[in-house]
Amino acid sequence: MPLNKLIRDGDNQDLTNERFKSTFDTDLMASELRGGPEKLARVRELRDEITKRGHLFEVIPSAHRTRIERIEDVSKLTKNMMEILPEIADVTSNFEMITVLRDVIGIEGFPLAIHSLMFVPTIQNQADEEQIELWLMDAIQGKIIGTYAQTELGHGTNLSAIETTATFDPSTDQFIIHTPTTTANKWWPGGLGSCCTHVILVANLIIDNKNYGPHPFFMPIRNTQTYLPIPGVRVGDIGTKMGINCVDNGFLGFDNYRIPRRNMLMKHSKVSKNGVYTAPSHPKVGYTTMLYMRSEMIYHQSQYLAMALIIAIRYSAVRRQGEIQAGQPEVQIIDYQTQQYRLLPGLARCIAFITAAETVRSMTENCFKGLAHGNSELLADLHNLSCGLKAVVTNQSSQSIDQARQACGGHGYSDASYMPTLFTSAIAACTYEGENIVMLLQLAKYLMKAMAKIDGSSEELGVLMQYLKNEKSSKDNELICHFEHIARQRVHHAYRQMKSLETSGINKDVAFTSCSVDMAKAARAHTKLFIANGFVERCQQVKEPEIRKVFDDLLELYLCYELSEMALDLSLDGYLSSEGVYDLRHRIYEAMRRLRPNAVSIVDSFDICDRELRSVLGRRDGHVYENLIKWAQMSPLNQKGLPHVEKYLKPMTNSKL
Amino acid sequence: MPLNKLIRDGDNQDLTNERFKSTFDTDLMASELRGGPEKLARVRELRDEITKRGHLFEVIPSAHRTRIERIEDVSKLTKNMMEILPEIADVTSNFEMITVLRDVIGIEGFPLAIHSLMFVPTIQNQADEEQIELWLMDAIQGKIIGTYAQTELGHGTNLSAIETTATFDPSTDQFIIHTPTTTANKWWPGGLGSCCTHVILVANLIIDNKNYGPHPFFMPIRNTQTYLPIPGVRVGDIGTKMGINCVDNGFLGFDNYRIPRRNMLMKHSKVSKNGVYTAPSHPKVGYTTMLYMRSEMIYHQSQYLAMALIIAIRYSAVRRQGEIQAGQPEVQIIDYQTQQYRLLPGLARCIAFITAAETVRSMTENCFKGLAHGNSELLADLHNLSCGLKAVVTNQSSQSIDQARQACGGHGYSDASYMPTLFTSAIAACTYEGENIVMLLQLAKYLMKAMAKIDGSSEELGVLMQYLKNEKSSKDNELICHFEHIARQRVHHAYRQMKSLETSGINKDVAFTSCSVDMAKAARAHTKLFIANGFVERCQQVKEPEIRKVFDDLLELYLCYELSEMALDLSLDGYLSSEGVYDLRHRIYEAMRRLRPNAVSIVDSFDICDRELRSVLGRRDGHVYENLIKWAQMSPLNQKGLPHVEKYLKPMTNSKL
Repeated sequence: MPLNKLIRDGDNQDLTNERFKSTFDTDLMASELRGGPEKLARVRELRDEITKRGHLFEVIPSAHRTRIERIEDVSKLTKNMMEILPEIADVTSNFEMITVLRDVIGIEGFPLAIHSLMFVPTIQNQADEEQIELWLMDAIQGKIIGTYAQTELGHGTNLSAIETTATFDPSTDQFIIHTPTTTANKWWPGGLGSCCTHVILVANLIIDNKNYGPHPFFMPIRNTQTYLPIPGVRVGDIGTKMGINCVDNGFLGFDNYRIPRRNMLMKHSKVSKNGVYTAPSHPKVGYTTMLYMRSEMIYHQSQYLAMALIIAIRYSAVRRQGEIQAGQPEVQIIDYQTQQYRLLPGLARCIAFITAAETVRSMTENCFKGLAHGNSELLADLHNLSCGLKAVVTNQSSQSIDQARQACGGHGYSDASYMPTLFTSAIAACTYEGENIVMLLQLAKYLMKAMAKIDGSSEELGVLMQYLKNEKSSKDNELICHFEHIARQRVHHAYRQMKSLETSGINKDVAFTSCSVDMAKAARAHTKLFIANGFVERCQQVKEPEIRKVFDDLLELYLCYELSEMALDLSLDGYLSSEGVYDLRHRIYEAMRRLRPNAVSIVDSFDICDRELRSVLGRRDGHVYENLIKWAQMSPLNQKGLPHVEKYLKPMTNSKL
Repeated sequence: MPLNKLIRDGDNQDLTNERFKSTFDTDLMASELRGGPEKLARVRELRDEITKRGHLFEVIPSAHRTRIERIEDVSKLTKNMMEILPEIADVTSNFEMITVLRDVIGIEGFPLAIHSLMFVPTIQNQADEEQIELWLMDAIQGKIIGTYAQTELGHGTNLSAIETTATFDPSTDQFIIHTPTTTANKWWPGGLGSCCTHVILVANLIIDNKNYGPHPFFMPIRNTQTYLPIPGVRVGDIGTKMGINCVDNGFLGFDNYRIPRRNMLMKHSKVSKNGVYTAPSHPKVGYTTMLYMRSEMIYHQSQYLAMALIIAIRYSAVRRQGEIQAGQPEVQIIDYQTQQYRLLPGLARCIAFITAAETVRSMTENCFKGLAHGNSELLADLHNLSCGLKAVVTNQSSQSIDQARQACGGHGYSDASYMPTLFTSAIAACTYEGENIVMLLQLAKYLMKAMAKIDGSSEELGVLMQYLKNEKSSKDNELICHFEHIARQRVHHAYRQMKSLETSGINKDVAFTSCSVDMAKAARAHTKLFIANGFVERCQQVKEPEIRKVFDDLLELYLCYELSEMALDLSLDGYLSSEGVYDLRHRIYEAMRRLRPNAVSIVDSFDICDRELRSVLGRRDGHVYENLIKWAQMSPLNQKGLPHVEKYLKPMTNSKL
């Protein structure tokens, strides 16, 4: 039996030929990438359960639907899925829920997205027991549908400057919720546009003219019977976006709207009947949600990238275009070095990001365990690292997705490829959950603190910061030493720049901001070092020799490619000779040459089925062209009597005899 | 009177303050950027004519419309515009037509786009006099609507491999047009989906079993009365794309469809009644159309980028977020160095690209004049240069547009910003009219020919290639010497690599392909040198001292930024010291500091009005927030009785008491 398990009779012959070249068992690789054979088996069981139920996936491709129709389709799928879920999956398992969601719903959003992701967990984590008793079951059963309303029209990044107020009125034991300015309108919460009946509102708590800063409030906004806004509430949809248009991001404003005092979520902070405020015990308890969200984001980005690579690499094996040697037949486009250079470094990054996501997930779990025992040691290191990872991974994965998209030529621009959806979904993450530049500067501030420790006191540095102290690196892996060198140089350079400004009398904050481009560069290098280290360690854990060989090729490509992209920092001050730099490039080409025959089998091992992939171009069977025609025929523009033809074009051409 | 002419009472105060800082007269700058005071005046006259006529622009923003509605809106505007055009503009002037089109129609396409751009010109340039007599007036008057059908499902880049056949049948004096395979279906022509009645079809001319290669044919495809496909024709829309969805790109197949022999366009090639083929006199006459298209594309890309920068820079002056110094008020985000770094190098590029577009336009005109007198000297140099320019400009402008978009934070992801439309339109150009990597390799082949000349014979090199011969550069401008150094090193490196493979016995074509990543790098550097040189020369032509100063700052930023991006090539082999590299970076920051106070006034000088800009975020008056709310309220999701709410959400929440 061939090592690639996706070979079927009748498939496109070029693709089958590729699969016969595999040097490894694709099921073993899939198990490695999915986190073990049990998880892989479970994914496949869940997939089979869905396959049995046509009403969980039989819809017209979303590209052929209007936005309102798309939201209707996805709401229908949501309803069908909710009904069947307890029967086929463990609803308490995040892993199982995500597996089903990715298959049934896809990546463009659904009415309960923020409800499940943030509304329910916020009640669970921030409401007190009495409040949980009151609200949680309704939320879980969907009797109320909620979202999380924090960002305002005028403020996202700078949470401390939000303007919505919740003023305590002791005479009625109520809060008065108010939107004092235009910019204070809540803006962006997903589901707010048309789906939500409730929100967790973040507003400034005001007691006796004193502002206690942002706090969460449980707020009904629409009547659960009629869906009309409750008096005092202005709410609606904010219109279309670059992507993710199945989500109805919305706006929300209040006109002196009153809620009972006990609608403030009171697990951590409290306000008593007589207006006495009790602060939370741990001020940084809010970090944990962000940490969790960002570690999940890294995983999702790696999956968007994986999907783009499946599509582009399979298509590059199917597509033949141009001759390399005059007079010879047209070649598979994957045989062009430039095409490999567009795709294979992205593939190496994808595996590196999957690894980083695994690492951060397990570090986060350990950190939470520690916190439960009052140990917050890891929290700051991890929180700051997750900022850098979020920025680097979202940025690089969207770049690699667009390279994969462009590598498909014109067909990559068609929605039939699903590439536009993958790209617009991935690139959104560069902005949400913390704008990337802000994230990098957050990490840079932390790096500067570490530098100040090195500079001054004897205080201990976290594990991730140790390399900053050393003069040189002494890791076994020479390439990792290069990564350390780059990160160390950049961090030290930024620190020196800042310090020299401070010495010249410039204010500390201004000095930092004046070096912020270099600060961002330093944070990127520190993050890439972390990813590279994780990838090296991950490879060492691979047991099957033929899988290990492929991992090693991908690792080599990843390290040499990323270093080559930052090679200026190696060349400066003669750290690496020109020959050394050319050698890195040469190693990239060599690694690509070794990976080329396995390329299709590696993406096959991502184990993402056609239904989930939603791409005509990336089909497992490689029958691209006939299915592009079938897909096109579904376009609503192929109906008769189109208004523009009847009203405007026919009157012009009908004068032709 | 203030130097910035866009200051109005009641504008956002931050924006007005920015405008008061201008060190130059914005009308003088606008005249410089628009190609002189007469052209600027004419643009404004045309704008005023449109302003008088509400039916030329009063439509619902396209983001709130379905695709079919958008096409209806744009068809209506097209009809209204066509009726009024002869009254307000010189319809023979490309400049005036583009000015009106950008204002009335925008950039998402319209039913006559390819008709005007390619169908009519192809008849004019490739039909003989008798054919022009028969077809041209109908086409100009819109009695027939056409497109240009060349690309097939299976072949775009490699034109010589298209499969559609036009077989001459001498017994009936007809051609039999046929689509022999699935991949032979025409795919992508704009307007084909629903609008066109005719096409210029590119098909292989077959006479007596001999294939004479691709030739153009004039073909009716839909009945001009009913718009139904003519028997033997399969035609329709290919569905939605990443952007440009007002264009109905289509598919087209033929089933032994017959047309008269005289429907082949016979100005250059001919087929006689008895099947004798006459070849064209100049084999490369087809280059001129591509040359013209690509030089226009460079201009359009510069304009997309200009629009993105107007939006992002104005918004960055209006938006306040975060404090640089603790306790101080929130700052305008344009004051962050990282924000400037995202926007100002893009602004410098934009001016460089406008300049490159002007240069290529005038070179193209000169070349065409030469050709008319039988002089084809410039053609090859210019054709190959245009390939490189197309690739570099489309790639860099879409990157800079996305940076500008991300610099607007979340609001840049909303269609209210118009940023997504600008980005998806700009990035499409990386693929159409010649995929970028293919373009770069085309130029690289030409560079390798030049290197072979230097290596071997005494044949003369074109002006643009001279620097490749020199050991060192001796230009007055040190930074231009750096550009030459980089381009020379990369071209020589690629050549050496290729030659060493050839010497080891590898086939010439294979050797080139094996070095293609380095080849593309070489072509990019050569192209950037051309752009840089053009920008330097352009600055020297600026007469007004205060305008010249701004141009010089932009030039300095452009040169230092591009060099900094390629600084590895300067650092290698010690050509430039580490201090030299750091100095380039320092000069970037200094140039940004000087440009910062003029940033808003520079983008104001692009002289693009709000109507054309179509962006809530980029409004001249800076009243962003209240207008975002107004824009949002138009979203169709704000109507009552939405199907997803009625059918799926209410049944869930109505069980709540």
